Amino acid sequence: MDELKSIKKIDDFYFTRKKELIFEKKGGKKIFGKFCVFVPTEIIEASGGISVGLCGGKESTIATAEEDLPRNICPLIKSSYGFIKEKNCPYFELADVIVGETTCDGKKKMFEHLMELSNLYIIHLPHFKDERSYELWLKEVHDFKEYVEKITGNKITDEKLKEVIDRENEERKLYYRVYELRKNIPTPINGMDSLKLFQKLSLLKIQDRIKLLKELILELEKRVENNYGYYGKRIMISGCPMVFGNTKIVDLIEEVGGIVVGEETCTGTRKFENLVNGYSIEDLAKRYFKISCASGFNNKIRMERIKELVNEQNADGVIYYTLQYCHTFNIEGVLIEKELKKEGIPIIRIETDYSENDIEQLRTRLEAFLEMI
Amino acid sequence: MDELKSIKKIDDFYFTRKKELIFEKKGGKKIFGKFCVFVPTEIIEASGGISVGLCGGKESTIATAEEDLPRNICPLIKSSYGFIKEKNCPYFELADVIVGETTCDGKKKMFEHLMELSNLYIIHLPHFKDERSYELWLKEVHDFKEYVEKITGNKITDEKLKEVIDRENEERKLYYRVYELRKNIPTPINGMDSLKLFQKLSLLKIQDRIKLLKELILELEKRVENNYGYYGKRIMISGCPMVFGNTKIVDLIEEVGGIVVGEETCTGTRKFENLVNGYSIEDLAKRYFKISCASGFNNKIRMERIKELVNEQNADGVIYYTLQYCHTFNIEGVLIEKELKKEGIPIIRIETDYSENDIEQLRTRLEAFLEMI
Ligand code: SF4
Ligand code: SF4
Ligand code: SF4
Ligand code: SF4
Repeated sequence: MDELKSIKKIDDFYFTRKKELIFEKKGGKKIFGKFCVFVPTEIIEASGGISVGLCGGKESTIATAEEDLPRNICPLIKSSYGFIKEKNCPYFELADVIVGETTCDGKKKMFEHLMELSNLYIIHLPHFKDERSYELWLKEVHDFKEYVEKITGNKITDEKLKEVIDRENEERKLYYRVYELRKNIPTPINGMDSLKLFQKLSLLKIQDRIKLLKELILELEKRVENNYGYYGKRIMISGCPMVFGNTKIVDLIEEVGGIVVGEETCTGTRKFENLVNGYSIEDLAKRYFKISCASGFNNKIRMERIKELVNEQNADGVIYYTLQYCHTFNIEGVLIEKELKKEGIPIIRIETDYSENDIEQLRTRLEAFLEMI
Repeated sequence: MDELKSIKKIDDFYFTRKKELIFEKKGGKKIFGKFCVFVPTEIIEASGGISVGLCGGKESTIATAEEDLPRNICPLIKSSYGFIKEKNCPYFELADVIVGETTCDGKKKMFEHLMELSNLYIIHLPHFKDERSYELWLKEVHDFKEYVEKITGNKITDEKLKEVIDRENEERKLYYRVYELRKNIPTPINGMDSLKLFQKLSLLKIQDRIKLLKELILELEKRVENNYGYYGKRIMISGCPMVFGNTKIVDLIEEVGGIVVGEETCTGTRKFENLVNGYSIEDLAKRYFKISCASGFNNKIRMERIKELVNEQNADGVIYYTLQYCHTFNIEGVLIEKELKKEGIPIIRIETDYSENDIEQLRTRLEAFLEMI
């Protein structure tokens, strides 16, 4: 298969990103580190700040984290914390503020440790999806705006907010378009390249993200026109995020002949779905409140969306991906498996960490699953 | 050591409690099952309902739970769910409604499964302890009142609420008094008997609880007068609840020569501390909001209270008890250990489940800890 030029370019841009950030920071820009797609980045950008993701996807820093944190927590949390503690994460080192949230027990309590290592701001995300919880969330988003303005020293004007919302919406629409193109048989992009978008592209600045996504879309459209692309058992991944450094499951799936055609994850649909419908803080709060993470209680929307996505992406089956000890995705996964099976959609649930220990066992299970569907 | 007659009596009362509940239910009373001390029982009692705890402390039902739930979640959650699924819990069978809450990820998501087995009502407990969260909590308590009134068909009158609040406060004061008596050297009651109060006594009806606590206090006062009681390394337990069926750690501690003089747990201080100061729903909401469970974010009060309790109970050291996979207590425990060590208070952290597998290893660790302090 030929290389996608735009995907290759991501590496070049990524390579210079650190320097760019150092330069911007010297110029007075404030850098906000975050761990979750619930953090409304428009607010940061509209006040002239820069938001960077700090989630860790590497096994190598986990031992360091385990000096402070218990072993029985999710590898994403441990890896992130380890990077920070080792001072091994350039983005963390550059960050002026860490923005946390209360999505899961592990992160919520990890932040209490992080408070001792950095300047921390926590957004309170409530458990429910009801009106009362939305009201609290809206106030939290307003507070966050005030806080960001204080840190950057820049008032968020209506114009600036509009500009930023339009820009982020534009990016979201481009991601939607990529997903649309992935519906095709053959699919014009594989899971590994797609993961690069979410893992590396998302670390770039928005102008570059949009530019590269546009280039990618042109390439993918050409492929679709020429019926050029990947055949194989079409897999949708659903579950926990796969952050930079962690390509384990996608590697395995595509090694054994599957082809990933969609990701119902935070390095996938949860990252871009739902546009901001309007230009106020309230419109912003509404969009983010809709994100359907397993952390919400009785969040039926997620289940419905998974079923829809299977159809939309022409998937043959779902690989439900849980990071070890992630209770919310793990327990919700059981219900999702039940429901999908009822609807005749093949699904396999996998709970894994960042280590290599279970690779052979996973390969066997995935092979069996792909054969079956 | 002589037996405490009041403690022995608990067994007799407990023995007939099930029949009593069946009788009351036939008489039209509604039974509310709950899993957490955050549920304001006064509301249930004031409308003529009966509240019963449903937390499971037994290994035997866990295998059944693991048919539905992932293995990697706390044994309390699995045991409770297993009891319910096996229809092996008489209290659950009798319950008209299950009242859940959003304290931890595991329970929150387990309730989504329980919804399919029973009539479920969930109270939204927010993550923070700030004004905004309290406002949400207060509304939740008001809603809960309306819900309970609907289920029981009885309006909660001011008089009834006052009566119930006074009664529960009376019980709380009696528990405070028991804790006061346990400060003595020798301490007049051991950890096993004390655990019985929280595990079995709390399943009885309030009138009996008060009666038996009063009898107990008389007995303990006599013991203190006579300098009669237990010597040994004085241990305070801090951490996760030890619910009915689970006596593992207290057994071990007292087997190796320790003596438990306090429990900073939900089968301990978190159950009774803080009176309701007034007679309104708001006063009630305030008292419950103060409960300092590790589920709250950045809840410094818990840390302070642990240190105070060590002093108050004349404890020689703290055994920090985490149920396996309980992220909040586990991660907070690390900070507590650090702080206590800084203050020169000996502490050991233990993470365990309901099985017997780690008994020998735990015994060795506890022996070493007791020798050291
Ligand atoms: S999975 Fe949930 S908690 Fe994790 S990044 Fe996504 S939205 Fe946030
Ligand atoms: S994967 Fe799960 S446990 Fe890990 S940070 Fe995300 S929500 Fe929390
Ligand atoms: S430990 Fe926390 S969640 Fe568990 S019963 Fe106590 S208050 Fe509720
Ligand atoms: S012990 Fe921890 S994990 Fe288990 S139910 Fe209580 S708070 Fe939740």
